[in-house]
Amino acid sequence: MALVVQKFGGSSVASAERIRRVAERIVETKKQGHDVVVVCSAMGDTTDELLDLAGQVAPAPPPREMDMLLTSGERISNALVAMAIHALGAEARSFTGSQAGVITTGAHGNAKIIQVDPDRVRRALDDGEIVLVAGFQGVSQDSRDVTTLGRGGSDTTAVALAAALGADVCEIYTDVDGVFTADPRIVSDAQKLDRISYEEMLEMAACGSKVLMLRCVEYARRYHVPVHVRSSYTDTVGTTVFGSMADIPTDQAVLTGVAHDRSEAKVTVIGLPDEPGYAARVFRTVADAEVGIDMVVQNTGTGRTDITFTLPAADRARAVALLRERRAEIGFADVRHDDRVGKVSLIGAGMRDQPGVTATFCEALAEAGINLDLIATSQIRISVLVRDTDLDEAVRVLHRAFDLGGAEVAVVHGGTGR
Amino acid sequence: MALVVQKFGGSSVASAERIRRVAERIVETKKQGHDVVVVCSAMGDTTDELLDLAGQVAPAPPPREMDMLLTSGERISNALVAMAIHALGAEARSFTGSQAGVITTGAHGNAKIIQVDPDRVRRALDDGEIVLVAGFQGVSQDSRDVTTLGRGGSDTTAVALAAALGADVCEIYTDVDGVFTADPRIVSDAQKLDRISYEEMLEMAACGSKVLMLRCVEYARRYHVPVHVRSSYTDTVGTTVFGSMADIPTDQAVLTGVAHDRSEAKVTVIGLPDEPGYAARVFRTVADAEVGIDMVVQNTGTGRTDITFTLPAADRARAVALLRERRAEIGFADVRHDDRVGKVSLIGAGMRDQPGVTATFCEALAEAGINLDLIATSQIRISVLVRDTDLDEAVRVLHRAFDLGGAEVAVVHGGTGR
Repeated sequence: MALVVQKFGGSSVASAERIRRVAERIVETKKQGHDVVVVCSAMGDTTDELLDLAGQVAPAPPPREMDMLLTSGERISNALVAMAIHALGAEARSFTGSQAGVITTGAHGNAKIIQVDPDRVRRALDDGEIVLVAGFQGVSQDSRDVTTLGRGGSDTTAVALAAALGADVCEIYTDVDGVFTADPRIVSDAQKLDRISYEEMLEMAACGSKVLMLRCVEYARRYHVPVHVRSSYTDTVGTTVFGSMADIPTDQAVLTGVAHDRSEAKVTVIGLPDEPGYAARVFRTVADAEVGIDMVVQNTGTGRTDITFTLPAADRARAVALLRERRAEIGFADVRHDDRVGKVSLIGAGMRDQPGVTATFCEALAEAGINLDLIATSQIRISVLVRDTDLDEAVRVLHRAFDLGGAEVAVVHGGTGR
Repeated sequence: MALVVQKFGGSSVASAERIRRVAERIVETKKQGHDVVVVCSAMGDTTDELLDLAGQVAPAPPPREMDMLLTSGERISNALVAMAIHALGAEARSFTGSQAGVITTGAHGNAKIIQVDPDRVRRALDDGEIVLVAGFQGVSQDSRDVTTLGRGGSDTTAVALAAALGADVCEIYTDVDGVFTADPRIVSDAQKLDRISYEEMLEMAACGSKVLMLRCVEYARRYHVPVHVRSSYTDTVGTTVFGSMADIPTDQAVLTGVAHDRSEAKVTVIGLPDEPGYAARVFRTVADAEVGIDMVVQNTGTGRTDITFTLPAADRARAVALLRERRAEIGFADVRHDDRVGKVSLIGAGMRDQPGVTATFCEALAEAGINLDLIATSQIRISVLVRDTDLDEAVRVLHRAFDLGGAEVAVVHGGTGR
């Protein structure tokens, strides 16, 4: 007998019909003799509808009230799934994040889980019940106000519960069959991975893969929770995210996949004095605009230097505005930006021990006539910035260059996972 | 400076536009220098939509989960109103019933408020905030599960908060201008009452008036909370519900109004032995079916007797089924029922001291050719059961017979209040 945590996304519970299907799957797992904890996102487009309603009522709603509003969505879906389970003859009970002991920071809209007190969930499991926990939410340790966890929060809730309860596995049910060597909508022979280490999955997430959010994978890694990413439409085995890269023997370490990211923009600060402290002023200014920086390149010249960096495209205007405001103070000549960029990344533990990877990477793109703008690397990742119109082709070129494709053509189900 | 509790029903917050209007009214009250606590029902038809969704997912949803589901509605509306208030430049904070300290029994779907711990609300008021509290809900004292309070629960929440906070008034904003001498949709010259005592309002509610629910008026009476029932569409002063009938001087005691009720059915148990204990068996059986009895009439014969009583029409089938099941055990000959009945009632503190009222009552109906089926009375009320098709005319006849009409024709706004 195992303790299984299952997470179902918004499209899996988007209608009464789908809710009943999900309930059948959950009860099936329970009948196999396991303890089952389920985390559901809000139904379908509920969260977006609530956001829209809020926008009609107020231009800049207070974050605390936004969290009170949005958490209704998960409350509704989890209560409905509990009802559907009950209709199939099994016992089920739903809890809010707060009731389930999910304690968080006070950052409304992007709270981080501090800890999970699993007692109430544990007692319900001991009573033989299937437990539903509303995803995407918790309660602030300080103010005792309800908080939401940011994008992908339901996945994080599921992994955090799995960690606190010592679950044997955390199953993330989504629209895709698992983690692929590349986005199957771009690369027709992308392969589903059987397994991927935590570090490689972290890089995939950081480099644009939307299957699992970064925070969720970090949590899984910290608490050694095996995460099984699989399809909610079929019974096919998905991808298991587990284990440290360090445990992969050298001869088995491979190149895992190609990720892409369209969400960034590029900013170049021109004519900065080439002396200590000036780069720091630029980055401090961007930080003051509450914007995170990804790739950075500084090209040294004579006396003057340019700094180029990438950041979320949605934040580009705010960051550039604040830089312009402080131009005299910081001391640069001009600032330019380019939103027409995309990032493509090759990830794999095998990169550590294969010296020619960077060369093959750059040669393949050059042969395809794709210009590299910036390069950034880690032990197991190479990322480059290219023109956004070249992005899909860059993904295909790299996937081919490193032999990541398989014989089967990937099956793509409708919609995008969350 | 006063402490004002304001309650807004579902139609008052049915859209973004109406929510903004309600927010303006609330902020206006705050600007007059008062502390303001607001209780909102769920938006428009939200509760019915959630009930419908539940029905699609499961035929007999567990009451605990139904409460988890339904309470989302009030959470949404109160968070949106808080946002709208904030957009007008005032501070506002929303709480669930649980967060606001509304402690209840464990009867899911029909919980009773045991007490209200107002500390968190009080602290927010002291911080200068307008406080929103989700109506219709609380938390069970024993299980710590979320509960809903039954029909009219938002009114009860508002009155209970007013009592716990020692508020100066509890304003119930609704679709009608106040409490009328009769339903203005039936009686064109029905008058709005300026004032009505708690006992008279209790009788009005018990006899079919839907303006305020019985439990809410009982709570107001117990804690001496002045309740001001008024329109959310205009600034017109409504009806104040306050004071004990005992405090009304004899010369000022009047006949207050005519109420009507279409929601009951009549059941007659025929041929019961005319000996002690048999009537009790009938009533115990109906109680076992969890059905409440209203009017009762027993006509004695020789050795055998018939008992006629009324009960909610929605429960009639269940009660009759259980009676038939136990026919031999109880000892009656037959049981019949009639769903085509209506109850009309005359209410007024003045009845105590006006000996001819019952006579005038019966004569007026007789003159109109309306047959009386059952009669039941209290110190301040006369109720009769008539054919349902005679009900509206009976209301008009009595209203005229006791001179309750005024010169102005009553204005009827759209929709029904809750």
